[in-house]
Amino acid sequence: MRLRLDIAYDGTAFFGWARQPDLRTVQGVLEAALAVVLRAPESLRVACAGRTDAGVHARGQVTHCDVERDLWASIRARGPLAPLRRLSGVLPEDLRVSSVATAPEGFNARWSAISRTYCYRISDVPGGPDPLLRHHVLQHPGHRGLPLNLDALNEASQILLGENDFAAFCRRRAGASTIRTLQDLRWERDPVTGFVHMWIRADAFCHTMVRSIVGALLPVGDGRRPISWPGQLLAGARRDPDAEVAPAWGLTLEHVGYPEDHELANQAMRARTFRGPDQD
Amino acid sequence: MRLRLDIAYDGTAFFGWARQPDLRTVQGVLEAALAVVLRAPESLRVACAGRTDAGVHARGQVTHCDVERDLWASIRARGPLAPLRRLSGVLPEDLRVSSVATAPEGFNARWSAISRTYCYRISDVPGGPDPLLRHHVLQHPGHRGLPLNLDALNEASQILLGENDFAAFCRRRAGASTIRTLQDLRWERDPVTGFVHMWIRADAFCHTMVRSIVGALLPVGDGRRPISWPGQLLAGARRDPDAEVAPAWGLTLEHVGYPEDHELANQAMRARTFRGPDQD
Repeated sequence: MRLRLDIAYDGTAFFGWARQPDLRTVQGVLEAALAVVLRAPESLRVACAGRTDAGVHARGQVTHCDVERDLWASIRARGPLAPLRRLSGVLPEDLRVSSVATAPEGFNARWSAISRTYCYRISDVPGGPDPLLRHHVLQHPGHRGLPLNLDALNEASQILLGENDFAAFCRRRAGASTIRTLQDLRWERDPVTGFVHMWIRADAFCHTMVRSIVGALLPVGDGRRPISWPGQLLAGARRDPDAEVAPAWGLTLEHVGYPEDHELANQAMRARTFRGPDQD
Repeated sequence: MRLRLDIAYDGTAFFGWARQPDLRTVQGVLEAALAVVLRAPESLRVACAGRTDAGVHARGQVTHCDVERDLWASIRARGPLAPLRRLSGVLPEDLRVSSVATAPEGFNARWSAISRTYCYRISDVPGGPDPLLRHHVLQHPGHRGLPLNLDALNEASQILLGENDFAAFCRRRAGASTIRTLQDLRWERDPVTGFVHMWIRADAFCHTMVRSIVGALLPVGDGRRPISWPGQLLAGARRDPDAEVAPAWGLTLEHVGYPEDHELANQAMRARTFRGPDQD
């Protein structure tokens, strides 16, 4: 039977999502914890909706794993919160599980998802970001002591919306499409922290795509590039050596969207067919 | 001439505010940075509004220091943001200066203040707090899997409001008053993070007073003590061995209030006379 686990992590001390020998990764630590709590075999595997890079954080990551029905039932019998409590006790403080539940029929954390929402946080004040939040915010001063120009950022972002070939913002992989649908992209100033937030949502993202988009837009916000620059990169349809990739630590996976339960299996089949192997 | 510096810090890696030989403290690190930037003598001293304990954080800490007019003028001549930029370049990431400016006549960061506002943050969800915010939030589950009872917490807090002798919640110091005026005390659930926040404001606080109040109220919120318990402690007017002091890392100094400029010197004189030596 399949479990859905919603998780959150501070990516600072992880070498990204994907299990790697001898490196501390989110997948590796989570699988080890589940093996302990579920007394499951070491071969237990977890799949996720957004395979974050080293240093990238997550608040709303969604994962699934398949476990034996009897093992699950024996822990669940100790009360509705027992699985969550036991997992929390085993996991380190920088990796938390916010919910564990049996997944609906046809659910696949990765392929059933219809949207991923990320937030990239930037502090543009001269003194640097709030020390309590510094681990997940990029310090990037605006131009000549002025704050980042949010109007320019939002205007330049428009051209990227909708279905496009994002090859200019992706690392290409053989046989995989770089066509994605950008559903939302907007820049706001958070009224509480004063940070600049870039909220971005798409059906899925290629590898390094969000950070490449931030890297293309930031020079517009600080006045180094014209508003037309990100659109030119997109039209070029290949990596431009002048385009930067923003640092990992400003980026957080905030939310993953799924269709109604009866659509989960169909969506998984469609996404797999369209995006090809090994792409989020 | 006197400078006012507004600062913020992550208290995790500091042994509190007050300079101590061979320990990393906020005062020690700040004085060393100012000595470098202002090319001032090593004897330069900084005073603050709230002398936070080891592990306690600050967003709105206010400090002052006296510097030679010529030294300040020479840095200020490089532009309005030059002092802030140079300090930020020298300071570590866990200690930030948000503003530096010449202080108004009669200003004393500590004695002119008329209020200090602290926030104590608690996560009561079974899985533990958001890993990105875990360094400044206490994990404290409610009673039997239920969330903390905010109505009970707010009701129990009422008795502490106003002018009281807070000897039950203070470490006594010879010759110093333990009478304080609690101006505000309320418990809220933050709609964004889901954390429970205790906001507390007083003219000033004694040593460990905020954390002792949290320690007295939390057992009311999780059902271990009746609503009358904090009032009983207050009336006892001395440390009760059953009363707990909440951990430092949940506590943040958020704001310091000052009167109008023409009242700064008078307020400093009044506070000094009333509170006696060595008390915030």
